[in-house]
Amino acid sequence: MTMDHITGLSCMRCGREFPSSYSDYTCSDCGVDGILDVHYDYEKIGSRTNRDGLQGAGMWRYLPLLPLDDSQAPPPLTVGGTPLYAPERLRRETGHPSVYIKDDGRNPTGSLKDRASVVGLARARQEGAEAITAASTGNAACSIAGLTAPAGIPCNIFVPERAPRAKVAQLLVYGARVFQVQGTYEQCFDLSVEASRRWGWYNRNCGYNPCLVEGKKTVAYEIAEELNWQAPDRVYVSVGDGCIVSGVYKGFYDLMQLGWIDTMPHLVAVQAAGASPVVTAFETGSEIVPVEPHTLADSIACGTPRNGLKALRALRESKGAAVSVTDEEILNSMSRLAVGSGVFGEPAGVTAYAGFLKQWEAGQVDRDERVVVLITGNGLKDVDSAFKAVGEPNRVEPTIEAIAGLVRTG
Amino acid sequence: MTMDHITGLSCMRCGREFPSSYSDYTCSDCGVDGILDVHYDYEKIGSRTNRDGLQGAGMWRYLPLLPLDDSQAPPPLTVGGTPLYAPERLRRETGHPSVYIKDDGRNPTGSLKDRASVVGLARARQEGAEAITAASTGNAACSIAGLTAPAGIPCNIFVPERAPRAKVAQLLVYGARVFQVQGTYEQCFDLSVEASRRWGWYNRNCGYNPCLVEGKKTVAYEIAEELNWQAPDRVYVSVGDGCIVSGVYKGFYDLMQLGWIDTMPHLVAVQAAGASPVVTAFETGSEIVPVEPHTLADSIACGTPRNGLKALRALRESKGAAVSVTDEEILNSMSRLAVGSGVFGEPAGVTAYAGFLKQWEAGQVDRDERVVVLITGNGLKDVDSAFKAVGEPNRVEPTIEAIAGLVRTG
Repeated sequence: MTMDHITGLSCMRCGREFPSSYSDYTCSDCGVDGILDVHYDYEKIGSRTNRDGLQGAGMWRYLPLLPLDDSQAPPPLTVGGTPLYAPERLRRETGHPSVYIKDDGRNPTGSLKDRASVVGLARARQEGAEAITAASTGNAACSIAGLTAPAGIPCNIFVPERAPRAKVAQLLVYGARVFQVQGTYEQCFDLSVEASRRWGWYNRNCGYNPCLVEGKKTVAYEIAEELNWQAPDRVYVSVGDGCIVSGVYKGFYDLMQLGWIDTMPHLVAVQAAGASPVVTAFETGSEIVPVEPHTLADSIACGTPRNGLKALRALRESKGAAVSVTDEEILNSMSRLAVGSGVFGEPAGVTAYAGFLKQWEAGQVDRDERVVVLITGNGLKDVDSAFKAVGEPNRVEPTIEAIAGLVRTG
Repeated sequence: MTMDHITGLSCMRCGREFPSSYSDYTCSDCGVDGILDVHYDYEKIGSRTNRDGLQGAGMWRYLPLLPLDDSQAPPPLTVGGTPLYAPERLRRETGHPSVYIKDDGRNPTGSLKDRASVVGLARARQEGAEAITAASTGNAACSIAGLTAPAGIPCNIFVPERAPRAKVAQLLVYGARVFQVQGTYEQCFDLSVEASRRWGWYNRNCGYNPCLVEGKKTVAYEIAEELNWQAPDRVYVSVGDGCIVSGVYKGFYDLMQLGWIDTMPHLVAVQAAGASPVVTAFETGSEIVPVEPHTLADSIACGTPRNGLKALRALRESKGAAVSVTDEEILNSMSRLAVGSGVFGEPAGVTAYAGFLKQWEAGQVDRDERVVVLITGNGLKDVDSAFKAVGEPNRVEPTIEAIAGLVRTG
């Protein structure tokens, strides 16, 4: 097992260092979860691989940049390799000539979370774990369930009672043991951490386990590679717990360290107005103050962002921004995105697009900027919200006259 | 516009020939739809490209083998390029050492139908169509809606009232004009053909337009290419209208003509027992007799298969087979497939897998055979059926004691 491209871990708050083998991911000084960073020996990585030497399908082509033993078996599902679109109609209709859509809903279980789960599964295997656990608003759980099932590793999932039915169905079909908790996501999170300690289950929670953000960062690598290693100027990311935006930052950070890109894109965090503690903290320059979440965008309905500190760092270090959008703006952006680009995202998935529209229409984005909007989850995950966005269809008798009546009235 | 790799069309029933420009796709002698074939000049194609010369992402790499002008703009969404898995756990649990799963639910709108829609859209553009129409149990409609929206072409869709809500939501989000017909799929089909003639809408129905099967055939190309141009021995395909199995046959047929593969796989059509006129016709050697369809696998709930003749030819010419499975077997196969391979398919999508299990467990498949099971649609398309397969989750109070109680009882 060669893991010598990892130099160790450190706490982003107190700076305390840990060896790369440290696997209780709470900072023993701060007593806080979700704030360790994984550090790499970029010189070693650069001497072993380069941009032209990447091989394989999906995110596995970036294995030399992941916190994994390089003799790892590839994941059972092909994760990543999702398309980056330059959508003509959307560009025409918004008026922005250089906006791109990265469709990460094309991942095997329908969300970007698969990127983290690939690393979670691989680490669990490396450590000989007999079971895995996760708490999730839905997508992360479906993702780890879909990846552990074919790997033959039992999976214990905590989801809040408000999780959309499609996500619960997915979990059950994959054979996971599902605890649908009569409570909030925050309670699920705490229960899964406790269960992990009590029963030795490997903990696949981004807000706890720093290796998972290392999987999510591969989306930044792909964006850069798809743009021929020219980093975009600005990247919009929906934010709940703050893990994805932290991953996007880490990805571009790695590429900067390796000299594979020349500039760090400005990262823009977009939150639902009813669950926007990261936006508030960024705007006021203060600590994150937990809120009670109220938004239909279930995947980002997090009142206590577990990766809040990392998210704020990503925004500050990238000279980025933070913006909140209403549920109405989210629903509206869902159909605008689908019609303009053909990409059908779930509410949390398209929140980033709502944020882009808001900033662009307010004149806060330059025409010259190359903008990437990251769509994090598939619209099929939450069909009830889609109906809120678009209403119901024409019901019609099976006669051509009835059809003609509707055609005439437009 | 160079289309000189197409030599013309012919009716598979009466043999009447038509020029390649013929675009009223009803055979003028037989007066029947859905029975024209597109013919190629394989020598010309072979002189222009070869297996090593294929370029580009997804199905567009096979453009020289499609009935399209080679100066066509690529489709607005990346279709095809879906994974072919060699799932270890599934192989272990079934005992078949060489079964592969082709996951076509990974297409942009979640089903194999996107392959046909790419060709439908391109043909409509070539012919300067101002609008498109389709009748569909759901997937074909979502697919053409998702592809025409970003292309800016209006789309008129006929779906039966029993179409699953996720599919209707998708249609509406893409901005299609949806007629939810208070009747059956068969009535939708007839209405869309009539509407197409009355209002000049381009007709994207596989049971009418022979160009669409030409898109579906690309899944066979991919299977062959992913297996390093060694054709599998047997391919299982879910069958409703019969268009997909016809496409799979056409794909392997093309590759045989080009000399890119050496053998024609045996194609096995799998139908739901409550809608199995193709199976009955194949087994009895008689004509297809329409039935009233009864199955929860909505995408293949077709009592009057529009491509039935083509489907039967595919089975006979490939020395294939036909098998029917109950709804219970379909639901059972859904979770067995998901757990064994990580692929979550909708009921019609996994019907092929149910057919494989049935034949394998009955000793009708050899251990030495390389078997491919084609999964045609994503499980997120029909979550209600998934719940029928797996039941409901454990609901639990948010305390570790409550969790411990459930863990103890397994």
